[in-house]
Order: sequence, then structure tokens, then C-alpha cells
Amino acid sequence: MQAEIITIGDEILIGQIVDTNSAWIAQQLNSIGIHVKQISSVADDPSDILIALTLASGRADLILVTGGLGPTKDDVTKQTLSTYFDCGLRRAPEVLAHVEAIFRRGNRPILEINRRQADVLEKSEVLFNEMGTAPGMWITHKERPYVIMPGVPFEMKHIMRERVLPRLRSLDGRVPVWHHTLLTGGIGESFLAEKIADIEAALPAHIHLAYLPKPGLVRLRLTAIGENQERLKQETQTFADQLKERIGEYFLADEDTTLEKLIRDFMQEHELLLSTAESCTGGNIARLITSLPGSSSMFEGGAVTYSNAVKHSVLGVKEETLDQYGAVSEETVREMAVGAKTVFRTHYAIAVSGIAGPEGGTPEKPVGLVWIAVAGKDHVTARKYLFGQDRAINIERSSMAALGMLWQLLNSEKDRK
Amino acid sequence: MQAEIITIGDEILIGQIVDTNSAWIAQQLNSIGIHVKQISSVADDPSDILIALTLASGRADLILVTGGLGPTKDDVTKQTLSTYFDCGLRRAPEVLAHVEAIFRRGNRPILEINRRQADVLEKSEVLFNEMGTAPGMWITHKERPYVIMPGVPFEMKHIMRERVLPRLRSLDGRVPVWHHTLLTGGIGESFLAEKIADIEAALPAHIHLAYLPKPGLVRLRLTAIGENQERLKQETQTFADQLKERIGEYFLADEDTTLEKLIRDFMQEHELLLSTAESCTGGNIARLITSLPGSSSMFEGGAVTYSNAVKHSVLGVKEETLDQYGAVSEETVREMAVGAKTVFRTHYAIAVSGIAGPEGGTPEKPVGLVWIAVAGKDHVTARKYLFGQDRAINIERSSMAALGMLWQLLNSEKDRK
Repeated sequence: MQAEIITIGDEILIGQIVDTNSAWIAQQLNSIGIHVKQISSVADDPSDILIALTLASGRADLILVTGGLGPTKDDVTKQTLSTYFDCGLRRAPEVLAHVEAIFRRGNRPILEINRRQADVLEKSEVLFNEMGTAPGMWITHKERPYVIMPGVPFEMKHIMRERVLPRLRSLDGRVPVWHHTLLTGGIGESFLAEKIADIEAALPAHIHLAYLPKPGLVRLRLTAIGENQERLKQETQTFADQLKERIGEYFLADEDTTLEKLIRDFMQEHELLLSTAESCTGGNIARLITSLPGSSSMFEGGAVTYSNAVKHSVLGVKEETLDQYGAVSEETVREMAVGAKTVFRTHYAIAVSGIAGPEGGTPEKPVGLVWIAVAGKDHVTARKYLFGQDRAINIERSSMAALGMLWQLLNSEKDRK
Repeated sequence: MQAEIITIGDEILIGQIVDTNSAWIAQQLNSIGIHVKQISSVADDPSDILIALTLASGRADLILVTGGLGPTKDDVTKQTLSTYFDCGLRRAPEVLAHVEAIFRRGNRPILEINRRQADVLEKSEVLFNEMGTAPGMWITHKERPYVIMPGVPFEMKHIMRERVLPRLRSLDGRVPVWHHTLLTGGIGESFLAEKIADIEAALPAHIHLAYLPKPGLVRLRLTAIGENQERLKQETQTFADQLKERIGEYFLADEDTTLEKLIRDFMQEHELLLSTAESCTGGNIARLITSLPGSSSMFEGGAVTYSNAVKHSVLGVKEETLDQYGAVSEETVREMAVGAKTVFRTHYAIAVSGIAGPEGGTPEKPVGLVWIAVAGKDHVTARKYLFGQDRAINIERSSMAALGMLWQLLNSEKDRK
């Protein structure tokens, strides 16, 4: 079964908002075996909407529409839809009661423009929206189901979860699909591709391998489409195991997760404490870890030591070390890591110092040069990296490399026990 | 002039990534008077790509394509493009040299798959990509310019800024447009709307007001479309001044900028130094500041003090204070701010302590409770906030509130001089 997602709204086409709805909807559909053929974003314009609906009906068996139902612009959308579906509008009493209740609760006077939110397509079934005033609609037209939903993400998600997905699960023509994702780190996309080329080439036609690179990480996703989900699961597992073995040291996890989650879970389980000492990453590593609920159980704290004075006064990096080797050096990051471990009284510590750019590079120490050290239970490992010219990417890649080094150390020290 | 944006990539259609490129491109085009008619996302599939290009050429005068040029899948895309544009591929020597240099720099052996990145459409002009291995292409086909770019956001943005936008600015058929953005903070979108309702209602038809909310901030953007850009500029200025006066204390800046940029520029100019002491924001404030080039000239460093022990040992918060008032209290954040100012030897310091959630709330101190203190030259201000249940949003709003408090203090102390 092929689906198309149409998002309506001027705000999308002038770039005021990023359309996050489509990705979320696509994920949901994909997970229940509905393949998304195309995503189209059009303006709040009758003819654009009509053309989009007409083209979509030629491409897809299921059409999902979001947006254009807010009180200030639902007139255009609803009139256009009633033209397309060739039916009038009716005022849904249950929706009207709900809208009026919302205004009563907010002690706000209700206007006709608000009441009109209760108008739905005559032929449609109401997809009730407890979360807001704009209801969703389900309408079947020329044997194709159309799902029409408001564009406010949490309202749309609510309607999808409660009303739409349960119905879609009961539709025929869905192809069983299975995804298996592997997380890799420290190896570039093209290198990885070369490394696993023969395994990828040997994949059967119904199993597809996708490369999903992020700075410092590449996720490999096997997607299998077929008859029997159980068998797809087993098949992808077989190939995942082959990939895992081939990827070797660059393999991080057998699931679609993040390094910081892996580290949090591992350190929680083993009751280990972590601290950070960040120069060029400027707090990004601490931010990534503390973005996770429950991180306070394994993260004591960190120091963002941007100036040399602070590297010395807060982390105890020796002034001679800074003078002799400079802030971006193996000696300095090693002392930073040991200093953090001591100051924050933790079992492990990460230290990063580099030149993020665009300024501050020299012939000997160019922009993109980053030293990372990880202090473990009984020793400190340090490594030099040479990233690129972009500040944001250098910060991101340094953070991922540092978390990757910690993850490897955690596992090696676990294995040694 | 009408443009269409086509984003290519299976990862978009299965919802693995959110397409942020289109919104950014649309913003850029909009700001130079090019109207985006439609955004279409299609799979890495030759026929889907061909159909999308054909339909787009019927709708738009300018077509921008992103994605599908990574080393592991550029074959499909480039072959499809050479079919559509009816021309072969040539290996661009300047691109090849660049790709080889990147690999030399990283001490990585170059593979044929990497060299192929230098293959471009015969008829196209190369849009050189200093940021990565996949070049962009500019090709004119049946009187329509097509811009083809890699999907990696920072590479695409670089090519757009350096190569594409300058050329587009010289194209005819663009409608004069002018944007004037005001940055506000500490007031919700609906309150703001109520506050300025009459000014908004009085706007002429050719001037549109858009609300662009982010956690803790709302940008107001006036967009004027007309004949004469100079006049549009003056008109929007008049309304911007009215809005500024009405918004009063919530007004932050008369431009589309960020709090951290305003703070960096002000502190650089006045040679002031900043430090941070973060608990619930976990380094996010330091991260925001250090994401800016040149921040090292005004940011000394910061402490992420997640545990009470570290609040005491690193920042010198008194144990009695922590025992008596708890980590999330006015007394503690005040001592954190003063501690940071002392430890990092700065003129200003920000301190944040709160309960980000989802765990850790109590009846007296619920999830979303955040105390923020800012230590200035001669005094410390502290404020209590009660945000919501969502951890990520609480961290973001706390960060914005803290930067907003610092910005106000900087300005008040400047005014007092």
C-alpha cells in the first residue's frame, strides 16, 4: 500500500516552520507496513490544494493531509476540500460542544469563527480531537481513504495515535515490514560502504540497506519487506550479524540508539560516575548526557574550561604544560581528564581540547585539530583527531568521538574484569 | 518568480530524518523575493525523481534539488539527472583535486566511490563545495535554472550562501519584498498577540505579521511585498517602531538574531567576561554561547554542577545552604552565581538550578520549577520560574530565560553608567 502525505500551509513554504509532521507520520506508517511514496507541501491556496490532491490520488492508495484547519484559515481549506470531495459541510454537534467547553474553561467569549471549527465535510467521519478545536476527518473517495488532520503537531499525533493508526492497521494491502538498525561510529560513510560492499551486494531484493550518517556516526538500517514478519525479523538478524562482525571495532550498538543513551544505561547499571572537561566542545557533551532523563544518577558534573587560566585553576592543568605544549595537546587533555576525575570525584572523565574554528588555527595546529582524552578506572587514553573547517560540525564530531572513546573504554574495562 | 524545492531521499520518506533543508531554502528564497510554490520529497528512485522534476518544471520557473548525492547513492541520482537533462557525466578536475585533498588531509586512502563524487553533469556548472566531497550543480534546461545540491545541511547552506543566492539575486522576475524582524522574550505568543492586536489589525494588505515562537522567545516578522523596496523598508520600520514601543520590557532586539549573539557582541565590545554555573540546563547555556565564533573573547568557562557535592566543592555553595534550602532555591542559585564569578574570575555569571523532569518533582518543588540568578558587576538578581513537564523544553526555556536576565542586567548596568 502506497501513501502520500500532503502538508498545507504558507508558513511551510516561506520557511517559517519546519514540517516535522511528515517525518513523524511517515515513521508511523512505515512501522505498520505502509510505504510513503511522496510528501508534498503546498500553500493555503485552493488551486494548489486541488492539484496536490488530484496528483496524490493518482500516485497513492491512501492520502493524509495536515494543516490548513486553524480558525483563521480553515475556510479556504474546508471549502476546497468540499469542492474536491464534492460534498457540503455539516456542523458536528459533538465537536461544537467540545469547542464551546474549551472557551468556557478559558473564560473566553466564543466567536462564530471559533464555532465554524465544528464544521466538517458531510461525507466524512469525525476524528475527534480532545487536544484542540480543529477536528480531524476520515473520508473515503473513489475507493481511497483520505485522512485530514490539523497541523498542530501534538494535536495531529493525538488523532493519529487514537483514531487513525488503529484503523489503518485493519486495512488490507499493507506489506509486512521489519527494520533492524546498527549504530556505528568512527568510520566514514564511504569507508563503511566499501567495508561491507559484498554483504550489501548479497542482500536479497526484498531487504534494503540504508546509510544514515550524522557527524561522527553512521546508522545502518536494514529494511525487509515481505509476507511474514517473523521471517523478515530472522532474515534481517542474519545479515545484521554478518555486518556486525565485519564492522568490528566501529560497531557501537545493535539498535537505533545514541552513544549518550548507551553510556547512561551502562554506567547506571554498573553504578559508575562520569564527569567532563570541555574546551572546544563548550559544554555540548555535558548537554547531550544531561538531556537524558535519569542522567543525574551517573553524571556528577563537568567543567567548561575555555581559557587556559581556568584549565589551570579549575582542573589543575599545570601552567608549565600549557606553556610548553599549548592548550590543544595530548599532555593538556590528559591532565584535563585526570583533573576532572579528581575534582568531580568520578570513575570516568572525558576531556576535549581543540580548535573549532573559524579563527585560531595555525600551520602547526590548524582549525579542526582536536585532542580527546578519556580517564578510566586505571588508565587514560588520548587520541588526536583532524576534523574539518566548520565550527558546528567540529563541535559535533568532537563530541561523538569523545563519547565513542568513552564507550570503548567502558567496554574494554568491563571485559578485563 | 515561482520556485519548487525537491528533496530526494528514502530517509525522508520513512521518517528517519526531518527535512530541515526545505524550510531554510524557502526562507532564503523568500527573503530575496522568490516565492516557493511547492516542496516535494521523493525517494531515491529514478522514476519518482523523473516525475518530480517533470511536474516541478510545469509549476515553477526555478527548481532546487537537494539530497541523493552522498557517496553511497549518488549513482542513482546522477544517472537519473543525466537522463532528465539528456547529458552525460564528466569528472570535474577541480572537484577531484578537492576530494583527494580531503582524503590526504585525513590520511585516509581514497576509493573509487569517493572519486566518483567528482562526476558532474556535462552541461552543468560546478557549484564548488569546500565543506564536503559532493559538489553542487547549476544547469539551465528549457530556459529553467535547476540547482542541484547535496543534502547534508551545512554543505547545502554553504553552497547556497556562496554560490547560489548571489546568482539568484541577479535573476529577473523577483517581487520586491522586505522583512523586518523583532526579537521578544519572556512573553507568550497569545499574550503578545493580544497586546499588539490593534497594531496588527491596522496593517495594510501588503504587509503581513508572522509570529515565530521558540521556547522562551517569540520573533515577530513583518513581511512587506510591493513595487519599491525602499518604500517597503520605510513602511515596515514605521510599524516596527509602533510594535517596539507597545512590547516594552519584552522587546529584546530590532533584528532577527539570538540572545547569545546579542550578549557576545555586547560583552566583546565592552570587554566583559562571562561564566556559567548550570545544574538543570546541564551545559546547554555554555554550549549556546560557545557555538558562536569569537565567544572565547568573552566566555571564560563554566561549571556543570549536577550533584550537590560538586555545587559545594567546585562553586563553593555552602553545605548549610544546600541542606537548609535545597539545590533548587534562591539561596543556592545566588551562591552558585557568585561562586562562578569568583572561580572563573569574570564580570558576570549566570546560574541555573531546577527540576527538568520527568522525575524528581515534589509537591513543594514540582517538575518545571527553575531558579535563575545572574551576578553582575555590583549585584545579583534572582528569579523563580515555573515551566512545564517536558524535559527538553524546560532546559530550552531555562536557558533562554537565563540569557534574557543577563541581557537585561547588561543593559541596565550600561544605562546606569
